Amino acid sequence: MKLIAEVLKITAGGKQIAIISEKSANSLGVHSSDRIKITYGSKEMIAITNVAVHFPQNRIGFYEEISKSLGIKGKETVTVELAEIPESLVHVRAKLRGERLREKEIKTIVEDVVERHLSEVEIAAFLTALNIYGLSISENEALSRVMVETGKKLDFGEGPILDKHSIGGIPGDKTSLIVVPIIAAAGFTIPKTSSRAVTSPAGTADRFEILCPVKLSNIEIKKVVKKTNGCLVWGGALDLAPADDLFIQVEYPLGIDPLLLPSILSKKKAIGATHVVIDIPTGRGAKIKNLTEAYTLASDFVEIGKRLKMNIQCALTFGEQPLGRAVGPALEAKEALSTIMGNGPDDLKEKAITLAGMLFEMVGLKNGRQKAHDIMQSGKAEKKLREIIGEQGGNPKIKPAEIVLGDKIGSIKATKSGIISRINNESIVRIAKAAGAPKAKGAGLILIKKLGESVKKNGTLLEIYAERNTKLKTALELANKLKPIVLNKKIEDQMLLDKIPKKISDQKQFILER
Amino acid sequence: MKLIAEVLKITAGGKQIAIISEKSANSLGVHSSDRIKITYGSKEMIAITNVAVHFPQNRIGFYEEISKSLGIKGKETVTVELAEIPESLVHVRAKLRGERLREKEIKTIVEDVVERHLSEVEIAAFLTALNIYGLSISENEALSRVMVETGKKLDFGEGPILDKHSIGGIPGDKTSLIVVPIIAAAGFTIPKTSSRAVTSPAGTADRFEILCPVKLSNIEIKKVVKKTNGCLVWGGALDLAPADDLFIQVEYPLGIDPLLLPSILSKKKAIGATHVVIDIPTGRGAKIKNLTEAYTLASDFVEIGKRLKMNIQCALTFGEQPLGRAVGPALEAKEALSTIMGNGPDDLKEKAITLAGMLFEMVGLKNGRQKAHDIMQSGKAEKKLREIIGEQGGNPKIKPAEIVLGDKIGSIKATKSGIISRINNESIVRIAKAAGAPKAKGAGLILIKKLGESVKKNGTLLEIYAERNTKLKTALELANKLKPIVLNKKIEDQMLLDKIPKKISDQKQFILER
Repeated sequence: MKLIAEVLKITAGGKQIAIISEKSANSLGVHSSDRIKITYGSKEMIAITNVAVHFPQNRIGFYEEISKSLGIKGKETVTVELAEIPESLVHVRAKLRGERLREKEIKTIVEDVVERHLSEVEIAAFLTALNIYGLSISENEALSRVMVETGKKLDFGEGPILDKHSIGGIPGDKTSLIVVPIIAAAGFTIPKTSSRAVTSPAGTADRFEILCPVKLSNIEIKKVVKKTNGCLVWGGALDLAPADDLFIQVEYPLGIDPLLLPSILSKKKAIGATHVVIDIPTGRGAKIKNLTEAYTLASDFVEIGKRLKMNIQCALTFGEQPLGRAVGPALEAKEALSTIMGNGPDDLKEKAITLAGMLFEMVGLKNGRQKAHDIMQSGKAEKKLREIIGEQGGNPKIKPAEIVLGDKIGSIKATKSGIISRINNESIVRIAKAAGAPKAKGAGLILIKKLGESVKKNGTLLEIYAERNTKLKTALELANKLKPIVLNKKIEDQMLLDKIPKKISDQKQFILER
Repeated sequence: MKLIAEVLKITAGGKQIAIISEKSANSLGVHSSDRIKITYGSKEMIAITNVAVHFPQNRIGFYEEISKSLGIKGKETVTVELAEIPESLVHVRAKLRGERLREKEIKTIVEDVVERHLSEVEIAAFLTALNIYGLSISENEALSRVMVETGKKLDFGEGPILDKHSIGGIPGDKTSLIVVPIIAAAGFTIPKTSSRAVTSPAGTADRFEILCPVKLSNIEIKKVVKKTNGCLVWGGALDLAPADDLFIQVEYPLGIDPLLLPSILSKKKAIGATHVVIDIPTGRGAKIKNLTEAYTLASDFVEIGKRLKMNIQCALTFGEQPLGRAVGPALEAKEALSTIMGNGPDDLKEKAITLAGMLFEMVGLKNGRQKAHDIMQSGKAEKKLREIIGEQGGNPKIKPAEIVLGDKIGSIKATKSGIISRINNESIVRIAKAAGAPKAKGAGLILIKKLGESVKKNGTLLEIYAERNTKLKTALELANKLKPIVLNKKIEDQMLLDKIPKKISDQKQFILER
């Protein structure tokens, strides 16, 4: 069938969608979501059909993605026909029936996700099935491998290439900002890519962006790493394992995370990592709730790492409260900078030194923890951090006090005296987001009191920072409602852990971060 | 945030989608697929966000669905804010975790599907989870009930209201065209709604449309039924259980059918049916492969019917070959008309009389089968069919020979003599569709030979009808490749049933019909 091209001057978010009339759809035997093959001159591509009732009969509407690929300006005549069902869809359907998929089958799926030959409906069904059935070790391995193959790679030459990653799930985790300079200061290569916040108040890229640009090109990254041994950059624009970003777009509204392992491991493999520490925050209020779960996940990480030729160690870390005291991009950057300068909270320092120490021992050093500690203590880590900041285009001399925080500040007081017995991570996340984080970079909160600390009646528990008064008010109201910090005379005072059924408004928010 | 409305002069297939720039999305804290609330004057609505890279910053793009609802022509200023996560999504996520849903939870989901507050991604995940976990009787019941509540109803007054439905899956099933007039001729009310083909070569609505219009308004339907006791109309535009049509749009590309029971039962309930026969074609090559499966499904139908206050009986029928000999809209209409006039294939006549007889006995008549037979034999059924055709706006005097068939005809011959031992329903479907059915109404095929019949070498097995030579050629080539009719000297000659693994091109096509 011949149709006349009409260019819609909008993008479809990367999706390759063409619009045809109901009449054309009937003539072609095409339903909405079916694939059509569009031919224009020597160019040919597959698009997913949207059938629109009032669309002119002899026309076909192209979003920018398609008109660009085909080099179409409008009014050209193109040939349109029903495309065959892609092989990948046959395998997606097999997964819906619970069948195990082999690497070559998974490869067709990932390729068609990247090529945009599978629709969001099909990707959603695939991910839902993976989430319900779970992935075998071989499926995790195959997904990791093909996600690397379908993207770009970064080559930092002769190994070892070190890396550190957290599976996420607790607020305020700014460990990478300290681990990277420690490792780099010891002369090892650690090209750290990270993500922005999806559902959290700050991602590592958001935090470091307070100190310097993080959106670097692949060439710029290589230059920074060559000079400093390390970097802390946003991975989103580097096209490393691009399938993962497309999967996350679909996982996010569903609150599922079936690809945790391949998502992380493909990105590590794509930068050529040889030695990786994976941080698994564990405990009530973290993504992984107990040690049993954590051990299972950790041994999968190690095994799949081995198959992908990466040496992996997992650190199961205490995850029942935020790390450090600051939550929100600027507040966290300030806390990380202070910590590397010697004035930070102990838990953050301890965790950074431990993880860096593990990496040192993985590459053969003795007393890794001591070495990491010494590098911090001697000021070499701070010097290295400032070097990286400078090379990435920031001000290497920045002082913690120069970091701009939200100037609308309020606080939550204790209504009685007691000892902090519980901090709800999820409520902390919601309050920091209500204050404006991560969009408002200066917004967030400071935990004045943490687990085990005592407070007097009317003593401050929490300080909230916002850039606008309305946001501050909303965050304070939410904090008063959620009561994220629980205190008791003694731990024994409160035996009740939870109530069933919950109210809908009590339902857990889902945390999807890498 | 205030944005200026831009009207995109295309529909989004009913979806309520608004397009905003990346910058606006960041300011609002909105990701693609998040919901936004749009306020214009006193009107307010929820839309699903598409984030487009090059969209003008101060604008918001509306597809026709939204601009119509809000009464917007373009250039108006609207207020946009992030909407809360709908309660239904909380329940969808619970289902992804395998939780059983209660009626009031299912109700929020179905309402939000109909209101277009859930995205296709969310609906796809919900249906995939239902397909994997299966539905409990109570979930089936609740879904049926809320699918009725969220749509229109047709009221035909004092009962009993009879109905007949096939779960589908075998080609050529034109039984309804004969059962409806038999029942109506006996003075019972039978307002039959049916669907068009989705993946088959003809739906009941496509078949009957050869004889008269089937797209009637609710008022017209009532008039026809008042005059004749029956009708055979397309249900698609009547807004009965509209959620079902939206679910089918998503199920279709996935090849899943988790809502078989509520889909059928909600449509029966919406027309006020009190006594329903459900036909379950059973056997290799049908949707239900064996009697064990069929009994389970049948007892679910009966139980859920009871809960919905409908008297249901299921007929498990032989499903290992097409019904009658004709496949394709016009060919089937012709065969049905001939059969009701006394000159049709025995299997079709037998099935129609049996099902009609079951309905008679359900409403208290004795010797139902005999009564159905007598009504056919006496010509009363034919008279009633012609009455219905006339009232629906067709020619009541139409003769079988006047029905226009495709005039490009080819045939498939036997390469040896023997007895027909197997007919592959799925291949028959593919060949009829390759010939042009259901779009080309005169296209399809005639099975010259059926199970147990003998054929000589070079005798005709199959006649293919098409409206265009290219289609005929494609269909003949496909028939020669697929060899849908298997013949043997004796049944014992072929012991091999199937080979594993199959080639991809051998994979089953999915049949989704109501």
